[in-house]
Amino acid sequence: MKKKLMSVLLTAAVAVGTLAGSAVSAQAASMQGDSSEEYYMVSFLSGIDYWKTCFKGMEDAANLLGVTAKYTGQTDADVAGQVAVLEQVIAMNPAGIAITCVNSTALADTINSAIDSGIKVVTFDSDSPTSNRSSYLSTGNEEAGASAAEYLVPLCGSSGKIAVLYTVGAENAESRVTGFKNWCAENAPDVGFVDVNDAGDTSTATDNMAAALQANDDIVGVFCVDGVAGTAGPTAVNESGIDGLHVLAFDVDKTVLDMIKSGDIDATVAQGQYNMGYWSQMFLFTEAHELSAVDLPGFVDTGVTIVTADTVDNYYVTE
Amino acid sequence: MKKKLMSVLLTAAVAVGTLAGSAVSAQAASMQGDSSEEYYMVSFLSGIDYWKTCFKGMEDAANLLGVTAKYTGQTDADVAGQVAVLEQVIAMNPAGIAITCVNSTALADTINSAIDSGIKVVTFDSDSPTSNRSSYLSTGNEEAGASAAEYLVPLCGSSGKIAVLYTVGAENAESRVTGFKNWCAENAPDVGFVDVNDAGDTSTATDNMAAALQANDDIVGVFCVDGVAGTAGPTAVNESGIDGLHVLAFDVDKTVLDMIKSGDIDATVAQGQYNMGYWSQMFLFTEAHELSAVDLPGFVDTGVTIVTADTVDNYYVTE
Repeated sequence: MKKKLMSVLLTAAVAVGTLAGSAVSAQAASMQGDSSEEYYMVSFLSGIDYWKTCFKGMEDAANLLGVTAKYTGQTDADVAGQVAVLEQVIAMNPAGIAITCVNSTALADTINSAIDSGIKVVTFDSDSPTSNRSSYLSTGNEEAGASAAEYLVPLCGSSGKIAVLYTVGAENAESRVTGFKNWCAENAPDVGFVDVNDAGDTSTATDNMAAALQANDDIVGVFCVDGVAGTAGPTAVNESGIDGLHVLAFDVDKTVLDMIKSGDIDATVAQGQYNMGYWSQMFLFTEAHELSAVDLPGFVDTGVTIVTADTVDNYYVTE
Repeated sequence: MKKKLMSVLLTAAVAVGTLAGSAVSAQAASMQGDSSEEYYMVSFLSGIDYWKTCFKGMEDAANLLGVTAKYTGQTDADVAGQVAVLEQVIAMNPAGIAITCVNSTALADTINSAIDSGIKVVTFDSDSPTSNRSSYLSTGNEEAGASAAEYLVPLCGSSGKIAVLYTVGAENAESRVTGFKNWCAENAPDVGFVDVNDAGDTSTATDNMAAALQANDDIVGVFCVDGVAGTAGPTAVNESGIDGLHVLAFDVDKTVLDMIKSGDIDATVAQGQYNMGYWSQMFLFTEAHELSAVDLPGFVDTGVTIVTADTVDNYYVTE
């Protein structure tokens, strides 16, 4: 519910009322919390490197704010399993939860029960749009696609065909493709496209990409739109033996980084995981302490970065 | 330039190096600044109410952080005038500047000169996309259009024609219309549209809207997509004498709020100005103090709220 914005505008100071969530005690308005105040990050496939960077961002922000950030998650991609983990976290009654959702609808009821009990909740990376979460912090996919085109298309000479390898029908990937093609329509209208379905599976993706390369001898570049494509696309290109193709991968798996280092592919698209965690923590703290007169912004585009041979060394995760 | 993310991930604490910008002195990493540290908001048409809410957000955040926020701007919409104001602000050497740009390209060089001299710069409400500003905080226009449709279309019975009154060709307005129509395509496919050009002028807008109402007796609702339409649309509907039309205005001018209160129109779309200022200040402080290991998120969707008779009283600005 919106707070009374204009009423607040009449007051001299920021309103600080009684605070929901037992871990946050009433105190003077400041950006300083207490180490007993806990915030959780909840993931799925909780062991993958991708989330480590997200949690590092959350931890850094928590350190700044003087509060405690904890990481947990479901080890696989099981929906019921993530609901169970979230329920366990809710039982700890933390001040806030940043969650990335294995499924766009299945977590909504549990998220709402957390909110009803006074815990602040934001989503990051993968949303639960029908829940009452306060904000969603993730990659703006159309923008990401446009950034990819801005890098790859001039490299390919702004003509010929570009193969676009992605999970057809997946919302994130489709939006990236839209952003990529819209950028081309505006800036490189001579570029054509070959849509290739990676079907969310590395082996199928490699086969389909190989077939597309055989069927289209005018392909000059490959945009790998998602994580699966990011590893399968370069493999198919390497196995094809075709020289001079420009390849832009997605995400920063070690195999992808190694291929950039060796010069097999040009670059990859890194997502803004650190910012997802960092600003999730800042948002949750701000809401838990009622430091703003209005609701949080609904969406933060945490952006992408093109990782080339010049910068690839910065992206290896060291244990 | 990207900082070395993964190198930072290896260190135990947040890196705090020497700080650029003379107003920020080196200190331990915390969310607490000094009142001698100044941040400026720079607007155009600087006397209008719209910016007051933006600056209130910035001021509240500055108070929390212990720093000083100042407001200035060009009194009219003159491009050279806003460049001159920005140059004066740069000469004060503040720690950061949040600027809303009267023109999408003309401020870029001056913004870049500020950044080159160590001042952090974000844009809000109206962007300078070709500049090197660190972030842009504004209304996500497609999302705003979808929110408008979600409110207005069911009220109109999800059939018949909806007149869409906007400045044809203006990017912000076109994006809102796209969001509105995409929502209808997915959720109310029986709805038709009558596009009406407001031409950025209240009198033309009123005339064109009146003509569209005469020519289409199956119009059941009106979506006013921008500020000009927000005042002109309701006027044309009132003067037409047609009963039972549902009208959703845009922005929160006093005349619009009065029409909601009197029941002449249903509601209006309020933009998230408070958040624009609040998170501009948080972002600038974070960047000036080098509190994050990576660059700021590139875009924050500060969201919209539908203002109805139930909530309209909160939106009157009192001096």
